[in-house]
Amino acid sequence: MSARISNTPALRFEVTARDGDARTGLLKTRRGVIETPVFMPVGTAGTVKAIRFEELESTDLDAKIILGNTYHLWLRPGIETIKACGGLHRFIGWERALLTDSGGFQVWSLGDLRKISEEGTQFRSHVDGSLRFLSPEVSMEVQAALGSDIVMVFDECAPGDASHEVTEKSVGLTARWAKRSREAFDQLQLADADEGRVEPDELSGDQALFGIVQGASHLDLRKESLDRTVEIGFDGYAIGGLSVGEEKSTMYEVLGDLAPRMPADQPRYLMGVGTPEDLVEAVARGVDMFDCVLPTRNGRTGQAFTSTGKINIKNARWMHDTRPLDESCLCKVCRRHTRSYVRHLYLAGEMLASILLTHHNLAFFLDTMRGVRQSIRSGDFPKFRQEFTGRLSANGE
Amino acid sequence: MSARISNTPALRFEVTARDGDARTGLLKTRRGVIETPVFMPVGTAGTVKAIRFEELESTDLDAKIILGNTYHLWLRPGIETIKACGGLHRFIGWERALLTDSGGFQVWSLGDLRKISEEGTQFRSHVDGSLRFLSPEVSMEVQAALGSDIVMVFDECAPGDASHEVTEKSVGLTARWAKRSREAFDQLQLADADEGRVEPDELSGDQALFGIVQGASHLDLRKESLDRTVEIGFDGYAIGGLSVGEEKSTMYEVLGDLAPRMPADQPRYLMGVGTPEDLVEAVARGVDMFDCVLPTRNGRTGQAFTSTGKINIKNARWMHDTRPLDESCLCKVCRRHTRSYVRHLYLAGEMLASILLTHHNLAFFLDTMRGVRQSIRSGDFPKFRQEFTGRLSANGE
Repeated sequence: MSARISNTPALRFEVTARDGDARTGLLKTRRGVIETPVFMPVGTAGTVKAIRFEELESTDLDAKIILGNTYHLWLRPGIETIKACGGLHRFIGWERALLTDSGGFQVWSLGDLRKISEEGTQFRSHVDGSLRFLSPEVSMEVQAALGSDIVMVFDECAPGDASHEVTEKSVGLTARWAKRSREAFDQLQLADADEGRVEPDELSGDQALFGIVQGASHLDLRKESLDRTVEIGFDGYAIGGLSVGEEKSTMYEVLGDLAPRMPADQPRYLMGVGTPEDLVEAVARGVDMFDCVLPTRNGRTGQAFTSTGKINIKNARWMHDTRPLDESCLCKVCRRHTRSYVRHLYLAGEMLASILLTHHNLAFFLDTMRGVRQSIRSGDFPKFRQEFTGRLSANGE
Repeated sequence: MSARISNTPALRFEVTARDGDARTGLLKTRRGVIETPVFMPVGTAGTVKAIRFEELESTDLDAKIILGNTYHLWLRPGIETIKACGGLHRFIGWERALLTDSGGFQVWSLGDLRKISEEGTQFRSHVDGSLRFLSPEVSMEVQAALGSDIVMVFDECAPGDASHEVTEKSVGLTARWAKRSREAFDQLQLADADEGRVEPDELSGDQALFGIVQGASHLDLRKESLDRTVEIGFDGYAIGGLSVGEEKSTMYEVLGDLAPRMPADQPRYLMGVGTPEDLVEAVARGVDMFDCVLPTRNGRTGQAFTSTGKINIKNARWMHDTRPLDESCLCKVCRRHTRSYVRHLYLAGEMLASILLTHHNLAFFLDTMRGVRQSIRSGDFPKFRQEFTGRLSANGE
């Protein structure tokens, strides 16, 4: 099993440059090489909302990996459908890399609608109200059927402001679930049960498995969770349970303490974070991978991320404004359309408003990561970080 | 003024091939040459719903001209905004040809919410409830400000089942409004008031004006309306007031009687029609131009037009169906995605369902017109018509 721990056939990682704690790397998957730090657009239900795959693949965006949500896909369309269509890649028509979360965060987010036990989590489906049970074993089975390139362990998330006592219990449960996830995953890989492979007759071992470090804002518990996760051994390590209600300074403090302790030769993934500023600050602390709904979700509610800060396209000040969303942006949307037009589309309830804002926002996030990588390679990351963060507050909206 | 009647600087038309009453032609505009018969996607509020302009321009669709709705654009964002942004082409970011309707049909559709007098139509805005007044003069002013390549006269539409008496009055009003439209249009062109020109210093006369023949299902009144419209003189002639409640056989009968009587050397435009079968049947009777919301609107409600008939993507029979929407279609959607996936997207309420169905449906309509043109040129139109119509009923949904 040791061969799978750091470098499975499915995933290899190498650090290519460092600038302080910040680093660039190559994440080599069977579906292409991914330069890190990388931002992964979120494709909850098998689609990155409001954008076509052709656009994600275009040079404008060039997203190398996207995320799918096990919880959502398991409930709808269901695993039988995705299996019948040859796994998640084939089902959605995406040949690049896919990471799936475990469903742990989604069921945790259900609050009173779910019941957590040692065995797993019982909850009611938001789609049809049926009673469902998600556990490390079920999550691994679902993710094997999805055939994602990177599988996440089933974890338990403690809220950002959880007490030491509550968090300690949560960290213990997460560690036991991580072990069960690892075992179930290994069995499934050996049993050739990962349905979503490129070719049906390929050897198993196509999927990689990442562990998740929890511990809320308690540095000692974060360290304990990290140690227990590394002890089990995974292909990469994620930081969960941040940006879930705690102060931003707390998040940066946890990251600054935790990330540099994580295995240096393996990818570090900060889950569900964050704003453009958060990404750059996390990179400064050694993080390699990110996913977040902000560029897509906020695009659908009329918010554009720009190099000089966020703008709300509904604002009357853009009524006759013929400038692009971001004057420094060269994406298709900024090359073609004005704030005035996007505002009109938004106010008229036109789908194209969401489409254009989503495209631009993703371009901004992905371009930011290109800038981050370039500056690390050239040893200019501190300057990039300072200038980028400084500009972000220029707009003042 | 006679120079503008059949061939303005803005528009020239020549018939290039005939097969019975069916014909191909070239509609030469300042924004490119359009092969006819042509289908114009409907871009009501400055966007063809759920599709990006890049896709409309792609070889997959290659729409040479789209339609905008004066009524909708006048109410929102309003003419001041569109003028401030340099006309409709610049406002929406579309450099190909644009046709705008006059708003006549939209205000007529408001039913009891509008009041028609000799002077024009008073109604309440569906956007803000304000009292508005639309007349031939106002419609021409708005369309000049929009700067569309083809302007439509302001007409009055009689319902498909209107009595002879009601229709006769309507035809009279339409003729008087057509004359006022012509006069107002000519003044505006001379006054250089068409704001949406490519270059601000170009000469006026950039816009073309089409007349509209009304008369419901009364062949004598259709003929009278045609005569009175041709007497005024326009760059092209449209047939209005069809597909508004009358029997399909009535529509074909009116078309068969009317279209061949229309000026042979000018474009004939059937407004707001129709199904793929309607398009082919109207071409057989001599029509050159079409617009219809069916491919876009029905796409958003889960209907795919295919070469073997319509399919409803919500149907459970497609749950595990890995075939494309249309097995004979080579559009991007059919090359990449399955019925199973599009069904999932639709049921999950994902915007991508509308995006993909709209793209495919437009590809089907535009490709049908390519097939129509090719078959006319090669003298095979009767065979094309028979086979196309025969296949459409194969699916049986």
